Amino acid sequence: MNLADIYLNFVEDIQFIEKELEERVQATNPVLNKSSVHLLRAGGKRIRPVFVLLAAKFGNYQINELKHIAAPLELIHMGSLVHDDVIDDAELRRGIKTVKSQWDNRVAMYTGDFIFGNAVETTTFFSEPSIHQVISKAMVEICLGEIEQIRDQFNLEQNLRGYLRRIKRKTALLIAISCQLGAMAAKVNPDIQRQLYWFGYYVGMSFQITDDILDFVGTEKELGKPAGGDLLQGNVTLPALYAIQTDTPLKKELEQAFCNKYMSEHQIGFFIDKIIQSGGIEYSLKLSDHYLEKAYTCLDLLPDVEAKKHLMEIASYIGRRKF
Amino acid sequence: MNLADIYLNFVEDIQFIEKELEERVQATNPVLNKSSVHLLRAGGKRIRPVFVLLAAKFGNYQINELKHIAAPLELIHMGSLVHDDVIDDAELRRGIKTVKSQWDNRVAMYTGDFIFGNAVETTTFFSEPSIHQVISKAMVEICLGEIEQIRDQFNLEQNLRGYLRRIKRKTALLIAISCQLGAMAAKVNPDIQRQLYWFGYYVGMSFQITDDILDFVGTEKELGKPAGGDLLQGNVTLPALYAIQTDTPLKKELEQAFCNKYMSEHQIGFFIDKIIQSGGIEYSLKLSDHYLEKAYTCLDLLPDVEAKKHLMEIASYIGRRKF
Repeated sequence: MNLADIYLNFVEDIQFIEKELEERVQATNPVLNKSSVHLLRAGGKRIRPVFVLLAAKFGNYQINELKHIAAPLELIHMGSLVHDDVIDDAELRRGIKTVKSQWDNRVAMYTGDFIFGNAVETTTFFSEPSIHQVISKAMVEICLGEIEQIRDQFNLEQNLRGYLRRIKRKTALLIAISCQLGAMAAKVNPDIQRQLYWFGYYVGMSFQITDDILDFVGTEKELGKPAGGDLLQGNVTLPALYAIQTDTPLKKELEQAFCNKYMSEHQIGFFIDKIIQSGGIEYSLKLSDHYLEKAYTCLDLLPDVEAKKHLMEIASYIGRRKF
Repeated sequence: MNLADIYLNFVEDIQFIEKELEERVQATNPVLNKSSVHLLRAGGKRIRPVFVLLAAKFGNYQINELKHIAAPLELIHMGSLVHDDVIDDAELRRGIKTVKSQWDNRVAMYTGDFIFGNAVETTTFFSEPSIHQVISKAMVEICLGEIEQIRDQFNLEQNLRGYLRRIKRKTALLIAISCQLGAMAAKVNPDIQRQLYWFGYYVGMSFQITDDILDFVGTEKELGKPAGGDLLQGNVTLPALYAIQTDTPLKKELEQAFCNKYMSEHQIGFFIDKIIQSGGIEYSLKLSDHYLEKAYTCLDLLPDVEAKKHLMEIASYIGRRKF
């Protein structure tokens, strides 16, 4: 089952959120308007809003309230992508030009700021401080993750623990709070809120590990950007981390390549092959599956509503996605 | 009377806010910690927190509550300075190295994001959605102002209205809401809240015009950065705007210089002299005074508490400051 089939079950509510997102990024300034709409149209799976909606199905589901939490979470994700692209000096994302390559770094920075500001403004609908606390804490954590990623670039002396902490902050946390906040907004009982948080966290970890795998084994067409991009930017992800820990000569070669801060296409191809041969992909798949299993366990403990089935389907889609 | 003398009247509360700021920018990540503390230590007049405190004196003054609004407003200001320095490619601010020159653009971007996130997190102390709305709307407006500044760089076809709108978003708004939010947090009655907002707005306009004047007439020592910096970056501020509207040959020469996107020290000196000779400084001073007068008028309508005297003193300091 692909994502579109799963989404068919609640397509109207997703379209409703999509409209809210369109309205939110409207700006009177033409550059900002274009850059934000450009970004929105670039698409994405809208996983975070979908998780908000599904988590809310365990309680008092009010789409008119939920939009004030579903839209901001997608906006925070979008804003951090714009800022990421500045950091990564990325030209393409999902096959289309990034804001920073279409305009420039300065526009990208303020587009990100504008989107973050809009996200915060949207959530002011809620008067519960707890909702604001969860979101703002997550924003701070995401920044910490980004700074760690910069610190760890071109560093081959990392360990698994550092990698996991980084992807937690970078990805898992926002997915976890999407589930949690959907549940909070729908006044789901706290125990179930907690289960949903952990479900999102484990799915998020699996999601990012899969992303990191795909960067090695995906084609340019599937990825919307060339393969090996992480390595090229000096981001040492799980498959590479496994490979250099089991193959010392490879580590030395990679160290040398990182020193030059430039790799040819041929060289990138060489490292991708070596990392695949090392078994780094299988190892990463196993860890991804391990997190998915944990996510399923969280679901088991939830009441039997239809949303549970959909959460299960999305989790299993994430475990085998190809792009 | 200088600012230090005025601040002497409530020095303990300012130090209390300063401590709060220090705690807020603490990060477990060493780079982020250093860059944030570096920024904090670079100082600044802390005008926004002081306005929060003074506005609150018209109502129920609780320093332990007010810190949750005074610190975030200074943090938002600090965060936007870090992002500005990336945009302006600035090496120095207040005489010391900027975050982007001490580290790099990427660190500066996430330091800004981290500080913004922290600001939002701090305000979650308040459960009133109105307080969050005022802050988040202002954050969005500030971004719009920044984007406008980029758009208008090296553009000599601007008018006064565009300039005023830009400095409103860039500076006056945050000072206006500092007064407003201090009053809101202290449950001051809405009429007085509104007066305080407008007082802050007019003071803020005067403050920025003064800043723009000083960029032409200040010495490098006074400014903490070389004079003529605005012009060098293509920012056409009020004195220059006046000069090119009254001196067409000068406009042509400046156009030529902007085309080359590089100006020698000698050339900058030439334009500074021409702008001073045009009467652009006197014109700007007059407009600054006009806003100050309006600020005083707002004060007249306020109840007679001691804070009113201090607000008056700060406003008059702003009207004649030299750095």
